[in-house]
Amino acid sequence: MKKLLIVMALLFQTSFITQAQQALWNPQNIISPEINPDNTVTFRCAAPDAREVKISGDWLPADGWVPGKTDMIKGTDGIWTYTSPVLPSELYSYHFLIDGVRNFDPNNVYLIRDVATVTNVFIAGGGKGDLYKVNNVPHGTVARRWYESPKLGVTRRITIYTPPGYEQSKQNFPVLYLLHGMGGDEEAWISLGRTSQILDNLIAVGKAIPMIVVMTNGNAVQEAAPGESSLGMYKPTFQLPKTMGGEFEESFPDVIRFVESNYRVRADKSGRAIAGLSMGGFHALHISRYFPNTFDYIGLFSAAIMPFEGTTSKIYENIDETLQKQLKNGFRLYWIGMGKTDFLYQACQDYRTKLDAMKFPYTYRESEGGHTWVNWRTYLSEFVPLLFN
Amino acid sequence: MKKLLIVMALLFQTSFITQAQQALWNPQNIISPEINPDNTVTFRCAAPDAREVKISGDWLPADGWVPGKTDMIKGTDGIWTYTSPVLPSELYSYHFLIDGVRNFDPNNVYLIRDVATVTNVFIAGGGKGDLYKVNNVPHGTVARRWYESPKLGVTRRITIYTPPGYEQSKQNFPVLYLLHGMGGDEEAWISLGRTSQILDNLIAVGKAIPMIVVMTNGNAVQEAAPGESSLGMYKPTFQLPKTMGGEFEESFPDVIRFVESNYRVRADKSGRAIAGLSMGGFHALHISRYFPNTFDYIGLFSAAIMPFEGTTSKIYENIDETLQKQLKNGFRLYWIGMGKTDFLYQACQDYRTKLDAMKFPYTYRESEGGHTWVNWRTYLSEFVPLLFN
Repeated sequence: MKKLLIVMALLFQTSFITQAQQALWNPQNIISPEINPDNTVTFRCAAPDAREVKISGDWLPADGWVPGKTDMIKGTDGIWTYTSPVLPSELYSYHFLIDGVRNFDPNNVYLIRDVATVTNVFIAGGGKGDLYKVNNVPHGTVARRWYESPKLGVTRRITIYTPPGYEQSKQNFPVLYLLHGMGGDEEAWISLGRTSQILDNLIAVGKAIPMIVVMTNGNAVQEAAPGESSLGMYKPTFQLPKTMGGEFEESFPDVIRFVESNYRVRADKSGRAIAGLSMGGFHALHISRYFPNTFDYIGLFSAAIMPFEGTTSKIYENIDETLQKQLKNGFRLYWIGMGKTDFLYQACQDYRTKLDAMKFPYTYRESEGGHTWVNWRTYLSEFVPLLFN
Repeated sequence: MKKLLIVMALLFQTSFITQAQQALWNPQNIISPEINPDNTVTFRCAAPDAREVKISGDWLPADGWVPGKTDMIKGTDGIWTYTSPVLPSELYSYHFLIDGVRNFDPNNVYLIRDVATVTNVFIAGGGKGDLYKVNNVPHGTVARRWYESPKLGVTRRITIYTPPGYEQSKQNFPVLYLLHGMGGDEEAWISLGRTSQILDNLIAVGKAIPMIVVMTNGNAVQEAAPGESSLGMYKPTFQLPKTMGGEFEESFPDVIRFVESNYRVRADKSGRAIAGLSMGGFHALHISRYFPNTFDYIGLFSAAIMPFEGTTSKIYENIDETLQKQLKNGFRLYWIGMGKTDFLYQACQDYRTKLDAMKFPYTYRESEGGHTWVNWRTYLSEFVPLLFN
């Protein structure tokens, strides 16, 4: 036995560990990003033979929709470096451009997919970003499940957050239905949206009451996010058919039925909220008026307010009539968030004019910036504390 | 209203879609990897200014632990191409090397982290790899939860697969506890291990009975996988303290207590299995003999059979005595899987000699290859059908 122990120890400490380092550890054994105490951030990229290395990040001044980029400086050790200005507390995305080719940061394993693009992420703390961190607080459960949608004729994937203590409790919990934007899916809010971290953190300090958050897939033609259905690992696309054709909105009772028959919930209007970003804000608008006595809380985050030209779905007819119905039935909160530079800004103002003319009450929150996850995380963080009080 | 519709349609179809394509879609609008009908696979990388582009993949002949690599060929369009030989059906990992710098395939959003390295993956179908795909079969639920470990004094993250129909059933289900290797965590089996796909697929064809699979974090110093605890998005390391010091094994009753008080399970020996890969095989060996009347099914996959020299944990004392106790108490299956070229091969044979001398019954499965996920997925796929019959 003793002999075996020695053999094993030798094997592990030399052959295995050393070689596994080569195979599993990245040869670029440097730290990047390094968040400095003053919230400047240093990035490093070992590329001794490269002629040019740039960094592109969402804190750099953007050129329209294209994130800004800037040069990294080569050191004598072949490591290219860039240190950012002091960054406001936030979750940031970035990538490298090595001789013009997009690359990820090989020293940062934290990556998030947004539609067909994968980017590195990091969080600068000390403020709003702390809400997006995993902190030392009680954590809810995040489950990926599948539900039947008879209306769409398929079984569909869904992401469900249940708050800390849900499983041990006998209580019924309220439910927030949270909808993604175009190109997104049931992974969007939980990854880029940091929903479970925001909820854990707000609940921990008593700023939100414990609630279930249901993150659907709003693309009626999809069973699940790319790679999570029998379509396999295909290349995701931004635009899909039937995303704004009424099909998802019409099938929404399938979601509610699944949630209310599988979870201990407050299965009444006062226990239901619906919110979404961009296309999901459009969905939330139409679902809440099409089923006008279902939700007491409605959130439109940078909502793509109107349907496309040429849609023939009956769900988009009688908008005024159903909004009137929704108004008459009553609700507790109709919350509209919009960024000042969002390309949907004017459409939102036109919709507000329409609501004002109807004396349809709503809360309006105008933020800096445009059509970005920075705003959607902010809106979620502000909306959730207003729910179910 | 009509005017708004037109404005919106224009906004969406020009400004938004076009610009979002630039921002969200990758400029490399090519297909890679392309799995051809004959299971050759074509890879493409747009790098017009690069001097050299190589591909490294785990189907190429490896140099020890370092995966093999080969040249890609530049086309007149600036796109570098490589087509693999016909690949046996399997899940493969790969990356590009552009002028010597490791890069991911910017046209493939499917990435898996293994310790501190992120690689692209794809599945070649038509055989074993089909078991790792999401197929059109009923799907189980995958939940990330947190459990209390009084023994370790922390709340810890855990990944739990419940089989299709679990939520609607009144039945009690058996449980497989599935443990990761060194450098891994509670994400390893569900990502690289494809556990939920393997279970869904085996259950669908009646080759496995519906069971719960509990994927723990075997690093006693960790609350959760990197990025999933209050330590934040730090750089993962391969070797951690207290992974093979007995702490995790001693705390295992905390896991069982959590599972058996939160799920409808068969809370007896005949309803419990434990298996692990490498360090997890070591854990499974020691947990199963330290709690010698707890598991009827034990699986050691490429197990790191022995503790390190110099360990002082009492759990590693009395190995012979506790194995005798386990033998006397009885069990239904003690399954050992090992690859012919695994660096742990001889240690495994020595352990078998020891078991033989004790007349300790076990099933031995020797495979081609070494210490790889290819083998661990294979072992899981073969082990699971033997359980709970």
